[in-house]
Amino acid sequence: MPLAVECIIIGDELLSGRTNDANGPVLARLCQRIGAQLRRVHVIGDDLSEIESTLKQASQNADIVVCSGGLGPTPDDRTKNALAQLLKVPLDDHAHARALLKVHYGRLKREWTQETNHYHLIPKGVTPIHNSKGLAPGLLAKNEDAVFLFLPGVPLEFEAMLEEHLLELASSLAPEMKARPTVTIRTHGVPEEKIFGQLCPGLWEQCESFGKLSSLPHYSGVDLVISAKEQMSEEAKNQWEDDIKTMIQSSALVDYVWQWGELSLPTYLLEKCREKKWTLGFAESCTGGLASSMITDIPGSSDVFLGSIICYANEMKQSLLGVKEQTLQEHGAVSTECAQELAIGALKTCGVDMAISFSGIAGPGGGSEQKPVGTVAIAVATKDGVTSELFHFHGGRTLLKKRFAAKGMQMALKKLIP
Amino acid sequence: MPLAVECIIIGDELLSGRTNDANGPVLARLCQRIGAQLRRVHVIGDDLSEIESTLKQASQNADIVVCSGGLGPTPDDRTKNALAQLLKVPLDDHAHARALLKVHYGRLKREWTQETNHYHLIPKGVTPIHNSKGLAPGLLAKNEDAVFLFLPGVPLEFEAMLEEHLLELASSLAPEMKARPTVTIRTHGVPEEKIFGQLCPGLWEQCESFGKLSSLPHYSGVDLVISAKEQMSEEAKNQWEDDIKTMIQSSALVDYVWQWGELSLPTYLLEKCREKKWTLGFAESCTGGLASSMITDIPGSSDVFLGSIICYANEMKQSLLGVKEQTLQEHGAVSTECAQELAIGALKTCGVDMAISFSGIAGPGGGSEQKPVGTVAIAVATKDGVTSELFHFHGGRTLLKKRFAAKGMQMALKKLIP
Repeated sequence: MPLAVECIIIGDELLSGRTNDANGPVLARLCQRIGAQLRRVHVIGDDLSEIESTLKQASQNADIVVCSGGLGPTPDDRTKNALAQLLKVPLDDHAHARALLKVHYGRLKREWTQETNHYHLIPKGVTPIHNSKGLAPGLLAKNEDAVFLFLPGVPLEFEAMLEEHLLELASSLAPEMKARPTVTIRTHGVPEEKIFGQLCPGLWEQCESFGKLSSLPHYSGVDLVISAKEQMSEEAKNQWEDDIKTMIQSSALVDYVWQWGELSLPTYLLEKCREKKWTLGFAESCTGGLASSMITDIPGSSDVFLGSIICYANEMKQSLLGVKEQTLQEHGAVSTECAQELAIGALKTCGVDMAISFSGIAGPGGGSEQKPVGTVAIAVATKDGVTSELFHFHGGRTLLKKRFAAKGMQMALKKLIP
Repeated sequence: MPLAVECIIIGDELLSGRTNDANGPVLARLCQRIGAQLRRVHVIGDDLSEIESTLKQASQNADIVVCSGGLGPTPDDRTKNALAQLLKVPLDDHAHARALLKVHYGRLKREWTQETNHYHLIPKGVTPIHNSKGLAPGLLAKNEDAVFLFLPGVPLEFEAMLEEHLLELASSLAPEMKARPTVTIRTHGVPEEKIFGQLCPGLWEQCESFGKLSSLPHYSGVDLVISAKEQMSEEAKNQWEDDIKTMIQSSALVDYVWQWGELSLPTYLLEKCREKKWTLGFAESCTGGLASSMITDIPGSSDVFLGSIICYANEMKQSLLGVKEQTLQEHGAVSTECAQELAIGALKTCGVDMAISFSGIAGPGGGSEQKPVGTVAIAVATKDGVTSELFHFHGGRTLLKKRFAAKGMQMALKKLIP
């Protein structure tokens, strides 16, 4: 049995929708990486008895309970108190906590005194732990059922401390644990229902003969993830992977596969550009900078990505990218003609080997019967020429921006992978 | 007592970290808006008995249980089966479900037959409900404890159906329900600990004398939200708001308040530009398009935002924005000198009234002892001149990009609000 983990995310701000939790997914990915099983995430408010009862419930279902939040300095930070109640111990002035506070505050050249906050008070018998990115110590505790790891809710601190302390804890509890082999098949351009319906009836069962299949539709495609039911030798794993690949390659799905692996679309695009030694830039109208931002989220993107023109106004399309007045008048900005001129213009203006352009309607306003919200013209230009296409997508404004950007990157990939 | 809501988010992809849940926060904001209390979000996997037991548990603690996911066409979509188990009823061929499927598929000019999928099978006694954005019907069910609303996990469908069906359900269960008055005070540039420590000792208690205080630190500041303990007349509410404002204005916190209200930073910046009839553009190096994308996420931004230059490569800084070779050599790209030239360049190149520039090091590579990762030079140019400043932030790459972008927008606000 893999190590079972439950997660408790604590904070009123999460239940009021003011903050989106980022820590649950970080823990989820870490568990996946080390072969632990995240069984459940509880998101609850800053309520003392609610925290206590959830700690108790989670500990009964898991080996490790990871908690995020409620360790800060304000009176609505009640996690320590809930833990003290659960363990039926008082809060104690803790020498090691004081030592950690010296280190944490010293990093910022500040001094901690017990007037600063109550960070030195720790439930009796609980171990305060080092916070490499912030001020409040984390906590390591135990009851008869599970081990608890308490971390601050600040994503930067949570993530760093999770890497440091959860890995150590997991390997002490289950030294032999290893992630199970998985294969990820990433598709684009075909809806989930069609994959397992008319396109490849029987594919689900075929995949499940190799392990557990998860079908994961998202904004730019469907990923199929097959997880092996057990550990394998390196040799058996390679054979297992080859057999899955052969199965998919002999199915109709193969035409929609854009990657055998786990890389994000921008990372994969950058890698393929790098292989060809091509530089990249965008002319972004309706995507408004999103495509460039997705690319620059990837560390090391600057050897491929040189820059972009965000040309929201038509004047900028003309002055910086050479779109012709006539093109705008005859075809409108949202047209393959305009997209082509944008991409060719960006090729020159940004001085890149490949330019992707977007001109469309992200809504909610600006649509017409002929060109409804969700319409986008995308072009890809290289020194060998330019291709373009008009698409229609569904969604709200931010979703449409993401779909447009992903489609442009998919079109570029087709130029990079013959 | 406000209407109590619990939420169950169902899907293995959420527990493997492949997908971040977007639906919990959407429900949270809707509950906030209508005055219902979201008490807990459970994130669980596609496991039949786990779903059933969570449905049961949630129904014991809430008036309404909203579930997301597991209604799709593949064998790992098990929500309907779990509901049937909970209610101890079989799945039935449902005439109204068939009628809905005609409508849903008809929208896409496709035909539904019972070979397409099992969407016509519904637990006996449960009501299928209309999905205005997708194919799978939602479900409305009841047990002795609560009402259940089952919605597809696709965010676009979840959000639309929530607006349609939850509002109706809530107003039928609690017709008198209204959101409680709240006041939001948004601050920037001072850490939470300092606010309630040395800056304004006693502020917490002062705020709590007006209602329940939540202190919400996030990547670009700390928001204080005070929620009234009870409903009020319009007159009393205005007085209550004025009293809170007076209290804050007489505290040292007032210097850090940038907004009395709930608008996002890009929305607020756009509004202030609009008031002055100023157009806006960016010269983005280290932010890589994020600032522009944040602005263009806001519907209607095109009357203010004309465009930006993403100048990742130094060549683009020089050729498009007129940064001098000498500036780069003497001060480097990450300098207030370069940032000023970038902003002045963008003012001209984009033809805007205000330009914000960013040149910094988002990491993880590229830092030095003098200019570590997290260093950023930001400038704001208008026809009246240019101001610039050098900052140091902490965080990973994507967090730093967000912090840089937010700081630039804050600097621009200072020019707009004297």
